Amino acid sequence: MQECKIAVIGATGAVGRVFLNILEERHFPATSIRLCGKNSVGTAFEVMGENITVEEVTPKLLSEVDLAFISATTSVSKEVAPMAAAQGAVVIDDSSVFRMDSEVPLVVPEVNVEALETHQGIISIPNCSTTPLVMLLKPLDEINPVQRVIADTYQSVSGTGAAAVREMEKQSSDVLQNRPVKADVYSHRIAFNLIPHIGDFHNNGYSDEEMKMILETRKIMGKPDLKVSATCVRVPVSIGHSESVHIQLSNHMPVTEARSILESAPGIRVLDDPNASVYPMPIDAAGQDDVYVGRIREDLSERNSITAWIVSDNLRKGAGLNAIQIAEELLRRDLMHR
Amino acid sequence: MQECKIAVIGATGAVGRVFLNILEERHFPATSIRLCGKNSVGTAFEVMGENITVEEVTPKLLSEVDLAFISATTSVSKEVAPMAAAQGAVVIDDSSVFRMDSEVPLVVPEVNVEALETHQGIISIPNCSTTPLVMLLKPLDEINPVQRVIADTYQSVSGTGAAAVREMEKQSSDVLQNRPVKADVYSHRIAFNLIPHIGDFHNNGYSDEEMKMILETRKIMGKPDLKVSATCVRVPVSIGHSESVHIQLSNHMPVTEARSILESAPGIRVLDDPNASVYPMPIDAAGQDDVYVGRIREDLSERNSITAWIVSDNLRKGAGLNAIQIAEELLRRDLMHR
Repeated sequence: MQECKIAVIGATGAVGRVFLNILEERHFPATSIRLCGKNSVGTAFEVMGENITVEEVTPKLLSEVDLAFISATTSVSKEVAPMAAAQGAVVIDDSSVFRMDSEVPLVVPEVNVEALETHQGIISIPNCSTTPLVMLLKPLDEINPVQRVIADTYQSVSGTGAAAVREMEKQSSDVLQNRPVKADVYSHRIAFNLIPHIGDFHNNGYSDEEMKMILETRKIMGKPDLKVSATCVRVPVSIGHSESVHIQLSNHMPVTEARSILESAPGIRVLDDPNASVYPMPIDAAGQDDVYVGRIREDLSERNSITAWIVSDNLRKGAGLNAIQIAEELLRRDLMHR
Repeated sequence: MQECKIAVIGATGAVGRVFLNILEERHFPATSIRLCGKNSVGTAFEVMGENITVEEVTPKLLSEVDLAFISATTSVSKEVAPMAAAQGAVVIDDSSVFRMDSEVPLVVPEVNVEALETHQGIISIPNCSTTPLVMLLKPLDEINPVQRVIADTYQSVSGTGAAAVREMEKQSSDVLQNRPVKADVYSHRIAFNLIPHIGDFHNNGYSDEEMKMILETRKIMGKPDLKVSATCVRVPVSIGHSESVHIQLSNHMPVTEARSILESAPGIRVLDDPNASVYPMPIDAAGQDDVYVGRIREDLSERNSITAWIVSDNLRKGAGLNAIQIAEELLRRDLMHR
């Protein structure tokens, strides 16, 4: 592995903080780390044993790094990604801005690492609900092509950001003590409630999050006509996105075969012994790198279909970890140039 | 309507209390009400302005009533329902014990009220997740036969009972205050978590709750071969079961047609203006009689399929209200004999 100088844009948000932890855990070979965050310029953070002061993001700063990770807002990505690329840095971006751009690889290393080879300076990581879904689909698709996918999600509030976690906790405490409840981050109260609304709505009645899952899954799987449907729901959970997934294959696949394929798939951990109360749950997946898969069974409504329940840490594999794995692959494959 | 003498078995449980409220709200023409509840014999409750003392359930008591509502445990239903029927009472039972018995009508009045006509003394009401599902399916099926259904549920803790609501609240408070968390009612902590486990598991990997949804839906719809799949998940919500439902019809149905069919369907309230943040949510459905339906849209994975999001009060339409509506129909149709 080469060593490299990196900048983290959005270093103090929910994903940014997890990202910095994962850099440390994985001993990422950064020779220098610069931190940028709009609302925390001047604050110092300890990263990998060093005290680093948060700076403003400037073309000069970007010209001094090899790799820029961006996980902030859509408008920050729109502005900073092209700026960084123009300065010669390779950008790994967590926003939806560039994901569907045909020149931008949209990558989950376990699924389509080869897409990195043609990058033009900007690489996107998928939405935090898409990543675990394609990790489940890919190993099955290799053996028995996937024809149709239905995913209903149960998404945690940390997907929205740190403010949403605080809001859920404050609201929960208010509900438990019969105090009036205020909703700022979401349109409605999330404590002890469900909100089937993630992102703005398109004319076809699908939310932006649902359309992301559909379109990103097709792109990453390299199956532009794959039939996908999704319903995305926010649930009162801090960390961990869960999904009930129904997968129609080309041919019948016994459950035992599906389970054994998934057991040897990279980045997947099968937790599937329901009689012993063993199945994936957000409280167990939070803080873990693997996508947890369980409740694997034949879909009783269609002979060639498999149903499963997946949970993964939306801040780790859903965001920070996936980005760092991409950086590791860029270094390993000597793709830090264009 | 005739008047009648009723007994409520399980009067002090989560469903029982709601049941008594609904009796009052609907001015149910009971000439006398007897209350039975294993753990509260001797306690007095005010019902319809009268103070009523909880009694032990005996053949003598049952011989003195026309109608017995049972919502207690499976073993209470197993014991008391045949005893009441033998004494000449008509039984409306909320347990799963008799639901699949070919001699027992399984009834949602809006869907298959005609099934009451052949009752033999015991009538079952469906599982609280099945009832809203068949209410959604039936009006569509009448116009365009339903071929396949996939339902993923988000079920509230009150479906388990009052102790589960208390446990969720206690656990939530403990989590918020960083205290150790104890799980008694469920196998795992439910506060800020999800548990994909409702009922025991069958050999095919489906939970009992999932198999109930599949088998009961077929029976109520009168479609023994209907293709149905379900995944049932417990969520940290007090009252209100939600479901993401994918319905494959025989022919294409425009979304506008589906919405207009549902808008005029009995017991359904369409709440579907997502751009204005209007869609069904548990906090709104709790305490309401109607099944709330929203997020109605074409299923993008299959041309003839419609997707929707439904929420209903599991204690009301899912249990107590449905039972009382059945009793009202028995009186209206003069079916209090055998």
